[in-house]
Amino acid sequence: MRLILLGFGTVGQGLAELLLAKAALLSRQYGLKPVVVGIADMQKGSIANPKGINLKRALELAKKGKSLTALPGRVIEGDALAFIKAVNADVLVEATYTDIKTGQPATSYIEAALRKKMHVTTTNKGPVALHYARLKRLADRNRVQFLFEGTVVSGTPLVNLIRDTLAGCEIREIRGILNGTTNYILTRMEEGLGYEAALKKAQELGYAEAVPDADVLGWDALAKVTILANVFFGGKKKPFDYSCRGITKIDASAIAKAKEAGKRYKLIGRVWRQKGEVHASVAPQQIELSHPLAGVGGATNAVTVSTDALGDVTIVGPGAGRVETGYSLLADLIHLATSR
Amino acid sequence: MRLILLGFGTVGQGLAELLLAKAALLSRQYGLKPVVVGIADMQKGSIANPKGINLKRALELAKKGKSLTALPGRVIEGDALAFIKAVNADVLVEATYTDIKTGQPATSYIEAALRKKMHVTTTNKGPVALHYARLKRLADRNRVQFLFEGTVVSGTPLVNLIRDTLAGCEIREIRGILNGTTNYILTRMEEGLGYEAALKKAQELGYAEAVPDADVLGWDALAKVTILANVFFGGKKKPFDYSCRGITKIDASAIAKAKEAGKRYKLIGRVWRQKGEVHASVAPQQIELSHPLAGVGGATNAVTVSTDALGDVTIVGPGAGRVETGYSLLADLIHLATSR
Repeated sequence: MRLILLGFGTVGQGLAELLLAKAALLSRQYGLKPVVVGIADMQKGSIANPKGINLKRALELAKKGKSLTALPGRVIEGDALAFIKAVNADVLVEATYTDIKTGQPATSYIEAALRKKMHVTTTNKGPVALHYARLKRLADRNRVQFLFEGTVVSGTPLVNLIRDTLAGCEIREIRGILNGTTNYILTRMEEGLGYEAALKKAQELGYAEAVPDADVLGWDALAKVTILANVFFGGKKKPFDYSCRGITKIDASAIAKAKEAGKRYKLIGRVWRQKGEVHASVAPQQIELSHPLAGVGGATNAVTVSTDALGDVTIVGPGAGRVETGYSLLADLIHLATSR
Repeated sequence: MRLILLGFGTVGQGLAELLLAKAALLSRQYGLKPVVVGIADMQKGSIANPKGINLKRALELAKKGKSLTALPGRVIEGDALAFIKAVNADVLVEATYTDIKTGQPATSYIEAALRKKMHVTTTNKGPVALHYARLKRLADRNRVQFLFEGTVVSGTPLVNLIRDTLAGCEIREIRGILNGTTNYILTRMEEGLGYEAALKKAQELGYAEAVPDADVLGWDALAKVTILANVFFGGKKKPFDYSCRGITKIDASAIAKAKEAGKRYKLIGRVWRQKGEVHASVAPQQIELSHPLAGVGGATNAVTVSTDALGDVTIVGPGAGRVETGYSLLADLIHLATSR
């Protein structure tokens, strides 16, 4: 299995580390021998080597801030599209930056790879939230797979859980805590911090960005909700077609009131079907303390899937992280090796 | 895909209902067209029909307490072993009664089917807790699959979750609430009921048997823990080789003390590795209220899987039920149709 890594930032490096650490396990258990034949990164340069790139050296160079073009192989000039054209491989691992307004340029990379009959795995929310139906059709037409486990709750296996292990169930509703940053802030607020102080704490820990809008206004959760709507409910809308409220209006008194009522505020992303139509939303909700979602504190994510045959099934796990998100790509590669 | 159903009690009927309800979905989504060519039940009689048994009529007969031999087809005399010999099929669905001391007679049925190069799916804890390694080897030698999603937490997809979607992870520890009856009793005790009153309530609701030993002494959880040890840690021991304590010694004062310390009693089954050795146990434990397992009340089950790449992943769902356990068999059939 020959791979191209597009983007060699946190996530791409997380995958490279896992490929090194787990080479023996992958080969023994799945007969899977992934060879990275190309890495293309806007900052770090682009290199191709059909015999396989030395990932240990690539990681060393990246950590020292040096260019990957120092590695043995062919230096490819031009952008990522030129790279995909020039390098032959079986799978494109797409981990470039996310733009949830346009999905570009990642969507054009994915399209180019699918047209070249390469499987694609991505951690990029933009393409799946905005262009899922089109990309899935393109993949089907070219008889390859389009996978994106890491787009919703990082490596926590939600997408594969629904697709593979809840395969025979009718999915009636999906709702959950899809953003770790806001869940961390709400958890600290319940412990007594004010919103500003809790946000500052989240920024210090690296959970929240300096400009925290994408998290606290709910946009990140909204993109994930849209992905779930697209993939599991056949939704056709774009993220900002759905209603979205973040946590910026939740104050100490609201938290205290909920607590008195035996409840707890969570920022809940939700997708459901009503009268044949697909609905989705992001909004703070008061959750009964007895519900599995209420017990999920800190930066952890959790999603409850309501089904016909099993009732509610909830999965709780990490929603971010270098190795965690890298793992989502590895899980997709194993899926490629074991499914038909 | 031709199936033999062995045992047409609650679970076998639950599967039959799902096969009827989901025929269109299975065919459309997975190209899967299961045909039940034989049903063998100790009480209800045994019938074979290579053209397919009318499941709707079989369910009607079973519900009226009538014999399945009234259905069109060939009546097979003798026991289940004779039935497996006489009827050709691709998959044996084994849902006869559980004996966790010997694993018999179910184990001999599974062996006979594997030797005939039939895949096997079972909901029966005995064979997997006592004879997993041998049955897995036999399946491998005959190039068929031995599946058992329903043996641990009913249809909640724990086994498939670990095998498929956590496939690239190293599993370091599994611990969880594996018995719904005891979790229901502990939940009611925390609300103020005494042990005897809570047990009576569980019996009234059908959660606990008249002789509740298998649940309250921890044996049911112990069988499940042993299955997890066998399958995911290469454990070689039998259930009663591991330490096992139930909930019968937990009284109101113990519950109150835990509550004061911000904790909650749960009957926890646990498997882990220490210095290369596989350990397992069942015992009541005080769980921090902030842990996902603490929030799981009533008859629900929950399991936390500790991994290298993702840290802790927890799955929460039903641990029993007619359709829920029937679904575990359907999930295994879909796995057969989609894996290679």
